[in-house]
Amino acid sequence: MIETPYLLFLGDAPDPLAAKVAQGIKDWRPENAVGQYRMEGCKADLKLTDMTLAEARDAGAKTLVIGVANRGGVISQAWKKVLVAALEEGFDLASGLHNLLRDEPDLVAVAEACGRKLHDVRIPSVKYPIANGEKRSGKRVLAVGTDCSVGKMYTALALDTAMRERGMKSTFRATGQTGILITGEGVPLDAVIADFMAGSIEYLTPDNDADHWDIIEGQGSLFHVSYSGVTMALIHGGQPDALILCHEPTREHMRGLPGYRLPSLEAVRDMALELAKVANPGCKVVGVSINTQHLGEEEAVAYMAEVEARLGLPTVDPFRQGAARLADALAAL
Amino acid sequence: MIETPYLLFLGDAPDPLAAKVAQGIKDWRPENAVGQYRMEGCKADLKLTDMTLAEARDAGAKTLVIGVANRGGVISQAWKKVLVAALEEGFDLASGLHNLLRDEPDLVAVAEACGRKLHDVRIPSVKYPIANGEKRSGKRVLAVGTDCSVGKMYTALALDTAMRERGMKSTFRATGQTGILITGEGVPLDAVIADFMAGSIEYLTPDNDADHWDIIEGQGSLFHVSYSGVTMALIHGGQPDALILCHEPTREHMRGLPGYRLPSLEAVRDMALELAKVANPGCKVVGVSINTQHLGEEEAVAYMAEVEARLGLPTVDPFRQGAARLADALAAL
Repeated sequence: MIETPYLLFLGDAPDPLAAKVAQGIKDWRPENAVGQYRMEGCKADLKLTDMTLAEARDAGAKTLVIGVANRGGVISQAWKKVLVAALEEGFDLASGLHNLLRDEPDLVAVAEACGRKLHDVRIPSVKYPIANGEKRSGKRVLAVGTDCSVGKMYTALALDTAMRERGMKSTFRATGQTGILITGEGVPLDAVIADFMAGSIEYLTPDNDADHWDIIEGQGSLFHVSYSGVTMALIHGGQPDALILCHEPTREHMRGLPGYRLPSLEAVRDMALELAKVANPGCKVVGVSINTQHLGEEEAVAYMAEVEARLGLPTVDPFRQGAARLADALAAL
Repeated sequence: MIETPYLLFLGDAPDPLAAKVAQGIKDWRPENAVGQYRMEGCKADLKLTDMTLAEARDAGAKTLVIGVANRGGVISQAWKKVLVAALEEGFDLASGLHNLLRDEPDLVAVAEACGRKLHDVRIPSVKYPIANGEKRSGKRVLAVGTDCSVGKMYTALALDTAMRERGMKSTFRATGQTGILITGEGVPLDAVIADFMAGSIEYLTPDNDADHWDIIEGQGSLFHVSYSGVTMALIHGGQPDALILCHEPTREHMRGLPGYRLPSLEAVRDMALELAKVANPGCKVVGVSINTQHLGEEEAVAYMAEVEARLGLPTVDPFRQGAARLADALAAL
């Protein structure tokens, strides 16, 4: 668990997109984002207060989060100076980079000397159990996609927001690096050892109040041959009561797999539901989330109306419309 | 890759079952088993020549394989003496125990001094790629089960034998510890990092002659919530041309999951085939392998006849009958 709130480190981001992890934290957990730290030449700006380390410390920040990806995911020497100074100032560090903080001897030495923590969210920090399949109290909803990167995390975070606005009890459960940095905890599922994948999701979504919803961030796709095993572990470890289908309608082939066409929403619905019923016979598909970023407004509305009529399920783009109708569907279960 | 042939170390096995890894090597790769090494009190006997280390060395053995599991999977001090002497005698060591050889400093030191290798087959020794889903030449068959431990490895090894007897080109591809020790190579899939599972199976079953069959050892079950992600990675990484269904008809619930009933063979057939078609649209289910060890001869024959009629697929118990009819079904594809 990463201590919040954060100072968001944008480094020397070459463009705004490079700071998308930081942007995600600011968008979804603004209360976690005390300020931003930018180096010379930084091309990203979250419109947060620019702070020195000392100012952020005084404002209550506990952890410096590397909210930027640079080329190669490497920790540069220029960054290193700031990171060392942050440890000395009393911050923990958190990072989702491939280049692990713990693999940098100077950071390890300073962290130890200062009694601070280095959080590499790409690497599991827990020895997860093997899944036991036992029914847990509380409710769970999982986003399943036709493909990778179609908006499953966004959908889950928007749903969490909509459910809280409605007064429902919900917790977003992160299963990827960005989600973990946003919320400060979660399971980096793609880095978990095969035998413990489903168990890690059971661990992530334990017994809870009968009216509490865990909103589990999806990963991969049952139809993506590189990562389908990860998706399967989410379906069986999460034992969801409800599934939300996620889709990006302009994609021409599965991400990274030029020879593979996307499955239909119907195929994902049927396959995911049948598999989910193994762990939870009562599971239902309750809605559809469409990522319409590559469609114009009219086109997007028409596409969603067509899907809604075809599947008979509330269909929204949570970015354009929010996820209130999906929250309604869960409340009605 | 482990150097063959082996001297099979049975240690102080408390009973014959404890030596089942060694038994598997002797049964399936007798040419790999030069002799056995038994300590005082050993209750297992493979009916191989008992040899000293020097005798085994003279007989050509290259690796001492720990073919026995003791309580807790720990390397005892009594064993240690033999293992150290084996390294000094010029043997590599291979083990599938939880207690890794590489975690024993004295073994590491002696192995280094003697220039010998320590093979811990529970741990991947390769940095596997992420699966790319590209079609590979050659053919592949995968055993999929209604549950864990229903005879998938046995079926695959028996099929390999039957195919060779028929003059077909085939290679058994191990995906678990025992299979790896039997053949000297393979992927310990349950210990692979989630993101690389399917890629490890692509790596294991590369391009090959058009008429060559990889017989891929199955793991887990699509219907076993603890391990289904592993099974999924086999189906998508293996891109099988053919599936063989495996079942043990007397089991009352999924292994280790008292609340879960076994799926029907039809359910496994339909689910596995639909998923397999994502990676290989031409995939077919070609046969059924029944583990009838808990049935009498008449009962077994009647059960298999019933399954054969119901599914319209050749149905055999490879232990009782061999796998010739499954090899025929593959030859006819």
